[in-house]
Amino acid sequence: MKRALYLVFAILFGSSAHHAIAQKPEDAIKYRQGVFRVIGWNFGSMAAMVKGKKPYNAEEFARNAEIVAFMSKLPLEGFTPGSETGKTKAKPEIWLEMDDFEAKLKKMQQEVDALAKVAKTGNFDNAKDQLGEVGQACKACHDKYRNK
Amino acid sequence: MKRALYLVFAILFGSSAHHAIAQKPEDAIKYRQGVFRVIGWNFGSMAAMVKGKKPYNAEEFARNAEIVAFMSKLPLEGFTPGSETGKTKAKPEIWLEMDDFEAKLKKMQQEVDALAKVAKTGNFDNAKDQLGEVGQACKACHDKYRNK
Repeated sequence: MKRALYLVFAILFGSSAHHAIAQKPEDAIKYRQGVFRVIGWNFGSMAAMVKGKKPYNAEEFARNAEIVAFMSKLPLEGFTPGSETGKTKAKPEIWLEMDDFEAKLKKMQQEVDALAKVAKTGNFDNAKDQLGEVGQACKACHDKYRNK
Repeated sequence: MKRALYLVFAILFGSSAHHAIAQKPEDAIKYRQGVFRVIGWNFGSMAAMVKGKKPYNAEEFARNAEIVAFMSKLPLEGFTPGSETGKTKAKPEIWLEMDDFEAKLKKMQQEVDALAKVAKTGNFDNAKDQLGEVGQACKACHDKYRNK
Protein backbone atom coordinates (compact mmCIF):
# COMPACT_ATOMS: atom_id res chain seq x y z
CA MET A 1 0.00 0.00 0.00
CA LYS A 2 2.70 2.41 1.02
CA ARG A 3 4.56 1.93 -2.25
CA ALA A 4 1.38 2.43 -4.28
CA LEU A 5 0.63 5.58 -2.34
CA TYR A 6 4.06 7.03 -3.04
CA LEU A 7 3.64 6.23 -6.70
CA VAL A 8 0.31 8.02 -6.90
CA PHE A 9 1.72 11.07 -5.16
CA ALA A 10 4.74 11.07 -7.43
CA ILE A 11 2.60 10.83 -10.55
CA LEU A 12 0.08 13.40 -9.42
CA PHE A 13 2.31 16.01 -7.98
CA GLY A 14 5.84 15.03 -8.94
CA SER A 15 8.16 17.85 -8.18
CA SER A 16 5.28 20.09 -7.10
CA ALA A 17 4.71 17.97 -4.00
CA HIS A 18 8.33 18.54 -3.21
CA HIS A 19 7.88 22.25 -3.82
CA ALA A 20 4.96 22.44 -1.44
CA ILE A 21 7.10 20.84 1.23
CA ALA A 22 9.83 23.39 0.80
CA GLN A 23 7.23 26.13 0.19
CA LYS A 24 9.17 27.47 -2.75
CA PRO A 25 8.37 31.14 -3.37
CA GLU A 26 6.95 30.47 -6.84
CA ASP A 27 4.52 27.90 -5.43
CA ALA A 28 3.38 30.29 -2.73
CA ILE A 29 2.82 32.94 -5.41
CA LYS A 30 0.82 30.53 -7.57
CA TYR A 31 -1.18 29.43 -4.57
CA ARG A 32 -2.22 32.91 -3.46
CA GLN A 33 -2.93 33.95 -7.05
CA GLY A 34 -5.13 30.87 -7.31
CA VAL A 35 -7.05 32.00 -4.25
CA PHE A 36 -7.54 35.49 -5.71
CA ARG A 37 -8.65 34.06 -9.06
CA VAL A 38 -11.42 32.14 -7.35
CA ILE A 39 -12.39 35.23 -5.36
CA GLY A 40 -12.36 37.34 -8.53
CA TRP A 41 -14.51 34.87 -10.45
CA ASN A 42 -17.17 34.91 -7.76
CA PHE A 43 -16.94 38.64 -7.09
CA GLY A 44 -17.28 39.21 -10.83
CA SER A 45 -20.51 37.24 -10.84
CA MET A 46 -21.96 39.29 -7.99
CA ALA A 47 -20.76 42.57 -9.53
CA ALA A 48 -22.43 41.60 -12.80
CA MET A 49 -25.73 41.09 -11.00
CA VAL A 50 -25.41 44.36 -9.11
CA LYS A 51 -24.59 46.23 -12.30
CA GLY A 52 -27.50 44.63 -14.12
CA LYS A 53 -25.22 42.90 -16.59
CA LYS A 54 -26.79 39.60 -15.67
CA PRO A 55 -30.09 38.88 -13.92
CA TYR A 56 -30.05 38.85 -10.14
CA ASN A 57 -30.31 35.30 -8.85
CA ALA A 58 -30.47 35.28 -5.05
CA GLU A 59 -29.29 31.69 -4.77
CA GLU A 60 -26.33 32.19 -7.06
CA PHE A 61 -25.41 35.46 -5.35
CA ALA A 62 -25.50 33.76 -1.95
CA ARG A 63 -23.32 30.91 -3.23
CA ASN A 64 -20.82 33.39 -4.68
CA ALA A 65 -20.72 35.24 -1.37
CA GLU A 66 -20.26 32.06 0.64
CA ILE A 67 -17.37 30.98 -1.57
CA VAL A 68 -15.68 34.38 -1.29
CA ALA A 69 -16.12 34.27 2.50
CA PHE A 70 -14.42 30.87 2.62
CA MET A 71 -11.64 31.89 0.25
CA SER A 72 -10.94 35.11 2.15
CA LYS A 73 -9.42 33.02 4.97
CA LEU A 74 -6.83 31.41 2.68
CA PRO A 75 -4.47 33.89 1.04
CA LEU A 76 -2.36 34.91 4.04
CA GLU A 77 -0.36 31.66 4.19
CA GLY A 78 0.72 32.29 0.59
CA PHE A 79 2.59 35.46 1.53
CA THR A 80 5.59 33.48 2.73
CA PRO A 81 8.98 35.01 3.44
CA GLY A 82 10.93 35.22 0.20
CA SER A 83 7.89 35.27 -2.06
CA GLU A 84 7.97 39.05 -2.49
CA THR A 85 9.91 38.70 -5.73
CA GLY A 86 9.09 36.72 -8.84
CA LYS A 87 6.00 36.78 -11.01
CA THR A 88 3.84 38.70 -8.59
CA LYS A 89 2.04 42.02 -8.32
CA ALA A 90 2.44 41.98 -4.55
CA LYS A 91 4.50 44.92 -3.32
CA PRO A 92 7.42 44.20 -0.96
CA GLU A 93 5.79 46.62 1.48
CA ILE A 94 3.52 43.74 2.51
CA TRP A 95 6.39 41.99 4.22
CA LEU A 96 7.60 45.21 5.84
CA GLU A 97 4.15 46.14 7.14
CA MET A 98 2.69 42.71 7.77
CA ASP A 99 0.59 43.88 10.73
CA ASP A 100 -1.15 46.50 8.63
CA PHE A 101 -1.53 44.05 5.75
CA GLU A 102 -3.12 41.50 8.05
CA ALA A 103 -5.43 44.15 9.50
CA LYS A 104 -6.63 45.09 6.00
CA LEU A 105 -7.11 41.42 5.19
CA LYS A 106 -9.10 40.96 8.39
CA LYS A 107 -11.30 43.94 7.49
CA MET A 108 -12.00 42.32 4.12
CA GLN A 109 -12.85 39.00 5.80
CA GLN A 110 -15.32 40.77 8.09
CA GLU A 111 -17.02 42.59 5.22
CA VAL A 112 -17.21 39.38 3.23
CA ASP A 113 -18.67 37.45 6.15
CA ALA A 114 -21.29 40.19 6.46
CA LEU A 115 -21.98 39.90 2.73
CA ALA A 116 -22.53 36.14 3.00
CA LYS A 117 -24.99 36.77 5.81
CA VAL A 118 -26.87 39.51 3.95
CA ALA A 119 -26.89 37.52 0.73
CA LYS A 120 -28.77 34.70 2.43
CA THR A 121 -31.70 37.01 3.10
CA GLY A 122 -32.15 37.52 -0.64
CA ASN A 123 -32.54 41.30 -0.25
CA PHE A 124 -30.98 42.72 -3.40
CA ASP A 125 -30.49 46.30 -2.18
CA ASN A 126 -28.79 45.25 1.04
CA ALA A 127 -26.61 42.79 -0.81
CA LYS A 128 -25.63 45.48 -3.29
CA ASP A 129 -24.69 47.92 -0.53
CA GLN A 130 -22.64 45.33 1.29
CA LEU A 131 -20.89 44.31 -1.92
CA GLY A 132 -19.82 47.92 -2.12
CA GLU A 133 -18.31 47.67 1.36
CA VAL A 134 -16.46 44.53 0.30
CA GLY A 135 -15.19 46.33 -2.78
CA GLN A 136 -13.87 49.18 -0.64
CA ALA A 137 -12.07 46.72 1.62
CA CYS A 138 -10.48 45.01 -1.39
CA LYS A 139 -9.50 48.37 -2.84
CA ALA A 140 -7.85 49.58 0.38
CA CYS A 141 -5.41 46.70 0.17
CA HIS A 142 -4.92 46.78 -3.60
CA ASP A 143 -4.17 50.52 -3.54
CA LYS A 144 -1.42 50.12 -1.00
CA TYR A 145 -0.01 46.68 -1.61
CA ARG A 146 -0.59 45.67 -5.22
CA ASN A 147 1.23 46.86 -8.30
CA LYS A 148 -0.86 47.70 -11.35
CA MET B 1 -23.75 55.55 -3.63
CA LYS B 2 -24.50 53.84 -6.92
CA ARG B 3 -21.90 55.88 -8.73
CA ALA B 4 -19.26 55.17 -6.08
CA LEU B 5 -20.03 51.49 -6.30
CA TYR B 6 -19.53 51.43 -10.05
CA LEU B 7 -16.26 53.22 -9.65
CA VAL B 8 -14.96 50.72 -7.13
CA PHE B 9 -15.94 47.80 -9.35
CA ALA B 10 -14.35 49.44 -12.34
CA ILE B 11 -11.12 50.07 -10.47
CA LEU B 12 -10.99 46.66 -8.88
CA PHE B 13 -11.98 44.48 -11.74
CA GLY B 14 -11.98 46.72 -14.77
CA SER B 15 -12.25 44.64 -17.86
CA SER B 16 -12.09 41.44 -15.84
CA ALA B 17 -15.53 42.12 -14.39
CA HIS B 18 -16.75 42.40 -17.93
CA HIS B 19 -14.98 39.13 -18.75
CA ALA B 20 -16.64 37.30 -15.90
CA ILE B 21 -20.00 38.44 -17.17
CA ALA B 22 -19.32 37.07 -20.61
CA GLN B 23 -17.51 34.06 -19.12
CA LYS B 24 -14.69 34.40 -21.57
CA PRO B 25 -12.90 31.09 -22.11
CA GLU B 26 -9.58 32.41 -20.78
CA ASP B 27 -11.24 33.55 -17.56
CA ALA B 28 -12.89 30.18 -17.07
CA ILE B 29 -9.51 28.53 -17.62
CA LYS B 30 -7.82 30.82 -15.10
CA TYR B 31 -10.63 30.22 -12.63
CA ARG B 32 -10.49 26.44 -12.74
CA GLN B 33 -6.68 26.48 -12.67
CA GLY B 34 -6.95 28.70 -9.59
CA VAL B 35 -9.17 26.11 -7.94
CA PHE B 36 -6.70 23.32 -8.74
CA ARG B 37 -3.77 25.39 -7.45
CA VAL B 38 -5.47 25.74 -4.09
CA ILE B 39 -6.27 22.02 -4.06
CA GLY B 40 -2.68 21.18 -5.01
CA TRP B 41 -1.22 23.39 -2.30
CA ASN B 42 -3.29 21.70 0.37
CA PHE B 43 -2.89 18.19 -1.04
CA GLY B 44 0.86 18.81 -1.16
CA SER B 45 0.86 19.64 2.53
CA MET B 46 -0.99 16.43 3.41
CA ALA B 47 1.21 14.35 1.10
CA ALA B 48 4.30 15.82 2.75
CA MET B 49 3.02 14.71 6.16
CA VAL B 50 2.14 11.24 4.89
CA LYS B 51 5.55 10.85 3.30
CA GLY B 52 7.30 12.04 6.45
CA LYS B 53 8.72 15.09 4.68
CA LYS B 54 7.19 17.28 7.32
CA PRO B 55 5.89 16.37 10.78
CA TYR B 56 2.32 15.16 11.03
CA ASN B 57 0.10 17.84 12.54
CA ALA B 58 -3.45 16.57 12.95
CA GLU B 59 -4.97 20.04 13.05
CA GLU B 60 -3.16 21.22 9.94
CA PHE B 61 -3.98 17.99 8.11
CA ALA B 62 -7.67 18.38 8.99
CA ARG B 63 -7.66 21.99 7.81
CA ASN B 64 -5.99 20.98 4.53
CA ALA B 65 -8.59 18.25 4.04
CA GLU B 66 -11.49 20.59 4.81
CA ILE B 67 -10.22 23.12 2.29
CA VAL B 68 -9.80 20.47 -0.41
CA ALA B 69 -13.31 19.19 0.31
CA PHE B 70 -14.71 22.69 -0.17
CA MET B 71 -12.66 23.38 -3.28
CA SER B 72 -13.63 20.07 -4.88
CA LYS B 73 -17.14 21.45 -5.41
CA LEU B 74 -15.89 24.40 -7.47
CA PRO B 75 -14.03 23.42 -10.63
CA LEU B 76 -16.93 22.12 -12.75
CA GLU B 77 -18.35 25.56 -13.55
CA GLY B 78 -14.97 26.51 -15.00
CA PHE B 79 -15.25 23.91 -17.77
CA THR B 80 -17.47 26.16 -19.85
CA PRO B 81 -18.30 25.54 -23.50
CA GLY B 82 -15.52 26.99 -25.62
CA SER B 83 -12.84 26.81 -22.93
CA GLU B 84 -11.34 23.58 -24.30
CA THR B 85 -8.73 25.51 -26.23
CA GLY B 86 -6.24 28.08 -25.00
CA LYS B 87 -3.66 27.86 -22.25
CA THR B 88 -5.02 24.69 -20.69
CA LYS B 89 -3.99 21.10 -20.09
CA ALA B 90 -7.62 20.00 -20.20
CA LYS B 91 -8.28 17.56 -23.04
CA PRO B 92 -11.20 18.28 -25.40
CA GLU B 93 -12.51 14.81 -24.48
CA ILE B 94 -13.92 16.41 -21.32
CA TRP B 95 -16.56 18.26 -23.34
CA LEU B 96 -17.34 15.18 -25.43
CA GLU B 97 -17.71 12.91 -22.40
CA MET B 98 -19.05 15.36 -19.84
CA ASP B 99 -21.13 12.71 -18.04
CA ASP B 100 -18.08 10.55 -17.41
CA PHE B 101 -16.02 13.59 -16.45
CA GLU B 102 -18.66 14.66 -13.95
CA ALA B 103 -18.85 11.13 -12.55
CA LYS B 104 -15.09 11.09 -11.97
CA LEU B 105 -15.29 14.51 -10.37
CA LYS B 106 -18.10 13.29 -8.13
CA LYS B 107 -16.02 10.29 -7.09
CA MET B 108 -13.21 12.64 -6.14
CA GLN B 109 -15.61 14.81 -4.13
CA GLN B 110 -16.83 11.75 -2.23
CA GLU B 111 -13.31 10.56 -1.43
CA VAL B 112 -12.33 14.05 -0.32
CA ASP B 113 -15.40 14.38 1.90
CA ALA B 114 -14.44 11.06 3.47
CA LEU B 115 -10.90 12.36 3.96
CA ALA B 116 -12.15 15.48 5.75
CA LYS B 117 -14.19 13.25 8.05
CA VAL B 118 -11.32 10.85 8.78
CA ALA B 119 -8.85 13.70 9.24
CA LYS B 120 -10.96 15.13 12.06
CA THR B 121 -10.41 11.98 14.12
CA GLY B 122 -6.66 12.60 14.10
CA ASN B 123 -5.89 8.97 13.22
CA PHE B 124 -2.79 9.19 11.06
CA ASP B 125 -2.97 5.73 9.50
CA ASN B 126 -6.59 6.11 8.46
CA ALA B 127 -5.93 9.58 7.10
CA LYS B 128 -2.97 8.24 5.13
CA ASP B 129 -5.02 5.43 3.62
CA GLN B 130 -7.85 7.77 2.67
CA LEU B 131 -5.42 10.24 1.15
CA GLY B 132 -4.35 7.37 -1.08
CA GLU B 133 -7.96 6.90 -2.17
CA VAL B 134 -8.20 10.59 -2.95
CA GLY B 135 -5.00 10.38 -4.94
CA GLN B 136 -6.40 7.50 -6.98
CA ALA B 137 -9.56 9.49 -7.70
CA CYS B 138 -7.49 12.48 -8.84
CA LYS B 139 -5.32 10.24 -10.98
CA ALA B 140 -8.28 8.56 -12.70
CA CYS B 141 -9.35 11.91 -14.07
CA HIS B 142 -5.86 13.24 -14.82
CA ASP B 143 -4.96 10.09 -16.75
CA LYS B 144 -7.95 10.39 -19.02
CA TYR B 145 -8.60 14.11 -19.25
CA ARG B 146 -5.40 16.01 -18.62
CA ASN B 147 -2.47 16.52 -20.94
CA LYS B 148 1.01 16.14 -19.44
